[in-house]
Amino acid sequence: MPTISQRGEQMPASPIRKLVPFAEAAKKKGVKVYHLNIGQPDIETPQPVLDAVRHSDFKILEYSHSAGNESYRRKLTGYYKKFDVEVNHNQIIVTTGGSEAILFGFMACLDPGDEVIIPEPFYANYNGFAVAANVHVKPITSSIETGFALPPIEQFEQLITPKTKAILICNPNNPTGYLYSREEMEVLKQLCLKYNLFLFSDEAYREFCYTGKHISAMNLEGMENNVILMDTISKRYSACGGRIGALVTKNQQVLDAVMKFAQARLSPPSFAQIAGEAAVDLPDDYFDDIKAEYQSRRDILVSLLNKIPGVYCPNPGGAFYAMAKLPIDDADKFCQWILESFSYEQQTVMVSPATGFYATPGLGKNEIRLAYVLNKEDIRHAMTCLEKALEIYPGRIN
Amino acid sequence: MPTISQRGEQMPASPIRKLVPFAEAAKKKGVKVYHLNIGQPDIETPQPVLDAVRHSDFKILEYSHSAGNESYRRKLTGYYKKFDVEVNHNQIIVTTGGSEAILFGFMACLDPGDEVIIPEPFYANYNGFAVAANVHVKPITSSIETGFALPPIEQFEQLITPKTKAILICNPNNPTGYLYSREEMEVLKQLCLKYNLFLFSDEAYREFCYTGKHISAMNLEGMENNVILMDTISKRYSACGGRIGALVTKNQQVLDAVMKFAQARLSPPSFAQIAGEAAVDLPDDYFDDIKAEYQSRRDILVSLLNKIPGVYCPNPGGAFYAMAKLPIDDADKFCQWILESFSYEQQTVMVSPATGFYATPGLGKNEIRLAYVLNKEDIRHAMTCLEKALEIYPGRIN
Repeated sequence: MPTISQRGEQMPASPIRKLVPFAEAAKKKGVKVYHLNIGQPDIETPQPVLDAVRHSDFKILEYSHSAGNESYRRKLTGYYKKFDVEVNHNQIIVTTGGSEAILFGFMACLDPGDEVIIPEPFYANYNGFAVAANVHVKPITSSIETGFALPPIEQFEQLITPKTKAILICNPNNPTGYLYSREEMEVLKQLCLKYNLFLFSDEAYREFCYTGKHISAMNLEGMENNVILMDTISKRYSACGGRIGALVTKNQQVLDAVMKFAQARLSPPSFAQIAGEAAVDLPDDYFDDIKAEYQSRRDILVSLLNKIPGVYCPNPGGAFYAMAKLPIDDADKFCQWILESFSYEQQTVMVSPATGFYATPGLGKNEIRLAYVLNKEDIRHAMTCLEKALEIYPGRIN
Repeated sequence: MPTISQRGEQMPASPIRKLVPFAEAAKKKGVKVYHLNIGQPDIETPQPVLDAVRHSDFKILEYSHSAGNESYRRKLTGYYKKFDVEVNHNQIIVTTGGSEAILFGFMACLDPGDEVIIPEPFYANYNGFAVAANVHVKPITSSIETGFALPPIEQFEQLITPKTKAILICNPNNPTGYLYSREEMEVLKQLCLKYNLFLFSDEAYREFCYTGKHISAMNLEGMENNVILMDTISKRYSACGGRIGALVTKNQQVLDAVMKFAQARLSPPSFAQIAGEAAVDLPDDYFDDIKAEYQSRRDILVSLLNKIPGVYCPNPGGAFYAMAKLPIDDADKFCQWILESFSYEQQTVMVSPATGFYATPGLGKNEIRLAYVLNKEDIRHAMTCLEKALEIYPGRIN
């Protein structure tokens, strides 16, 4: 029997989804499970976005242009302009979700053995794309004590080797919710220019900033050839299943290379490109309500978490995630236990152990990530479950 | 300025699409271009398939299961059963087009430096996925003189090294239209069992067989752990833009590994999964008309080609492609010339130079691929253009 590849063996299993069987078992026992474990918003996809697909009248579901429909890319230039990002439609390659933008960026810029520095904790799937592309992730640890601020420049410099080709940030951050300041963005710029590095910037949560203004990496002057923006409509318009994202850069060599990867896979999904195009036409105030909703959820979640004895949660500046430190021995054990062996009034909560978001072994063992993608009442119930669980969890420390 | 990766440089540009600017220029001059260059069928997507999406009534465009919706996978088991392929829904992973099935297969089974043997000419994008996965394609040449039959087993054996991990076939074949016989499939089985190789089987054109019966690699007894089926709804239901395919195998280790790649990219497109599920419910006679249409197009195309002095086209057994040998110096030059410098009654034809389908340098220089994805009248006009063009092409030989 032929054996699978080492790459296939090394590929990490999703840390977010591995608890699913325990959640399913809890539900079978009649326990209601509040899902704060995954970034699937409960907010409805805007009706005009769904209607654009449902009212489409083409006869043949054809391949689109490998870079995505030109009409969509032209509209996207208007979208980016609202954030003072000036790009033309040839600098945008529509991808199959933000996922493919990350993979294409890695493939086009990094060779096997190359290194990319990523502040940890980070979105766990970056590991997966790194394994797929045979590149090495070099984590630089940000700490819950500083609210996950960017580590000092000296720490970055200590990690840089001749193999280092890029820094990857997610801003605002998944899983920490941290929003990088202008000063921090300038530090990244300094580093990239000094060491000739690409800056991969995942800005999936651009619209969801509650404390301060979002500084896009695309707006860093003099970084036109360094910055590669990885984007997606998934969270922005509650359209995760569409699988539409984009890679945006002014670096022509990168565009040319990415275009070849895009041609090999033929085209991004046609139906969801229609949805994406309609989404650009949503009125500007569309985000006002959504943002207000997420912000009020954040406020309740963070405030309730910090009221639980022994729990600490820094206030996230953006996205819809929060990281919390719990008085526990092992987050993986706890997250399984709360599904498997606990319920309060026939309810429990599913959260993500933070270990999966750290690349450095041993880190995150007393932290969890919570996605505030449920309504406020559900968040309250979930926090009650968490508080009650921590009172009786056998692995509680201090 | 940071430089792109070697992988990005090595990535081949699409040989099919590189002539596009010349076709666009011809159209701007008012010349009608018959597109026989790309496998985009002109046949309408079945109405129930499009209606399933248009009449969908969900409120949130959510991520699906990373392996695809269970309801769809369960239905697909019924689809495969019609071809005597017995699989359960956990042996099917829904992918973003056949493209992703190929990439996942390569990633999960092959490491950088590993070799995969592919009969050439072959679907050019296999090269792209090989570069993306850093694996080496070892071509084994099939010849237009034998109608592109499988090369003899001894030739395969000469190519096998300790690095050889797999053989990849496309059956029926793109670009040759060749349909592998039971005897040839048995040869492949012998080779894979003797040398412990994976058999990647791209069966995108399964339904389109005109001469003889399709033998799925999934039906080769004793090959359960070797065979990985790469599939797609694109051609079958004229649904190329949906980007829905599948990787199917009984090898549990491969399934587990592929599942991790699938989780990293979260999910296949949701809209088109609805389309795919509706397509499984089409009546069995759906393919009768389509197949009859393609077969009659093939008959006309091949007959007209063989009537042109100096042209030879073997009769393809399946798919909707034909390869033809022309009395020309250089297919790349010719395919550009016929767009750029030729027209007959304000019409011309776009075909693919065969060089892009061969990995061995120098092969295919006097061959072109024609996709018979236009109606019979258009095919007749296109063949008239080709005939007239060959009469005056400056690089004509003999």
